Amino acid sequence: MNVIIDLCVVPMGVGVSVSEYVALCQREIERAGLVHEMHAYGTNIEGEWDEVMAVVKRCHEVVHEAGAPRITTTMKLGTRVDREQSLADKVSSVSRKLAP
Amino acid sequence: MNVIIDLCVVPMGVGVSVSEYVALCQREIERAGLVHEMHAYGTNIEGEWDEVMAVVKRCHEVVHEAGAPRITTTMKLGTRVDREQSLADKVSSVSRKLAP
Amino acid sequence: MNVIIDLCVVPMGVGVSVSEYVALCQREIERAGLVHEMHAYGTNIEGEWDEVMAVVKRCHEVVHEAGAPRITTTMKLGTRVDREQSLADKVSSVSRKLAP
Amino acid sequence: MNVIIDLCVVPMGVGVSVSEYVALCQREIERAGLVHEMHAYGTNIEGEWDEVMAVVKRCHEVVHEAGAPRITTTMKLGTRVDREQSLADKVSSVSRKLAP
Repeated sequence: MNVIIDLCVVPMGVGVSVSEYVALCQREIERAGLVHEMHAYGTNIEGEWDEVMAVVKRCHEVVHEAGAPRITTTMKLGTRVDREQSLADKVSSVSRKLAP
Repeated sequence: MNVIIDLCVVPMGVGVSVSEYVALCQREIERAGLVHEMHAYGTNIEGEWDEVMAVVKRCHEVVHEAGAPRITTTMKLGTRVDREQSLADKVSSVSRKLAP
Repeated sequence: MNVIIDLCVVPMGVGVSVSEYVALCQREIERAGLVHEMHAYGTNIEGEWDEVMAVVKRCHEVVHEAGAPRITTTMKLGTRVDREQSLADKVSSVSRKLAP
Repeated sequence: MNVIIDLCVVPMGVGVSVSEYVALCQREIERAGLVHEMHAYGTNIEGEWDEVMAVVKRCHEVVHEAGAPRITTTMKLGTRVDREQSLADKVSSVSRKLAP
């Protein structure tokens, strides 16, 4: 089962700036070799369910190891069995409807 | 690593009423024997990371098997390494501050 | 337009314990006189769109005033025009399907 | 008070393909003249709190008017009073930490 997620990891108890911790997550996502795209309020990742979820767990592990005592993550997860759909498909599907 | 999640599974393409599909998820959560509590906009589940995530995957599987071609799920995930915290602790911690 | 929301306000830059700030939000919700119910990972609120959104804004204001330099909130919002639905309806609708 | 949101509007009861409804929201966001950026699982919008929230309400209205009987939206909202931060700042802040 393929899944597209939107992942937003928020470390707590480490002060107001968290980009250093978010960067650690980005490295794990890259290391996993999954298709992904960062945006201003999270990162979209696409892949096989177990591989994607392994990366999410790894993100929590590295952020805790880096010193964050607490993490609250927000995640959206999309699956479909009617047809395949990629990150790029989702955007272009809306863009086509917006074209004049 | 323990995790507390808030899970909201939304089947798409099955009409406007989705409680039947949400009930299928509830059964999977109960079957897994994890501490959980349903509220009006999701279900909180507490347990070991891998066990909790296995239930989330199982929810997507049963909802697809029941006929939903597409699912979009929203999830919050909380972990902490400074101390243990249960579902009940989280509520009582706020309630104590609200007591007159 | 009526709306049911699930609101989870996360203050950042104030240390690992945030229940004191969550309690400030709860007081604003109570003050507004809206139907609500706290759970372990947020609070469900039901009411007229503008009244509910005014409370969400008020929550951000009081949490900033109390000293939090940054807030990240997660919110689900449900509206329907086919029929009225309350917080209690949503839970009982699933519970009926779970009854033996 | 400025806010950065991540908005994901999910119409229910209109079948499995929802891009047509998402396009209606995009038009409202553009009409409002707010800085925004669509990604594969939502749209980030930046602006003054009341203007941003007015667009979110308008999205629910147009999607209902277009025939969706029910909508479930997921939204993240970020505010900060320590300094100004734009959509672009958030991404570049992480990117700098990822640079070799």
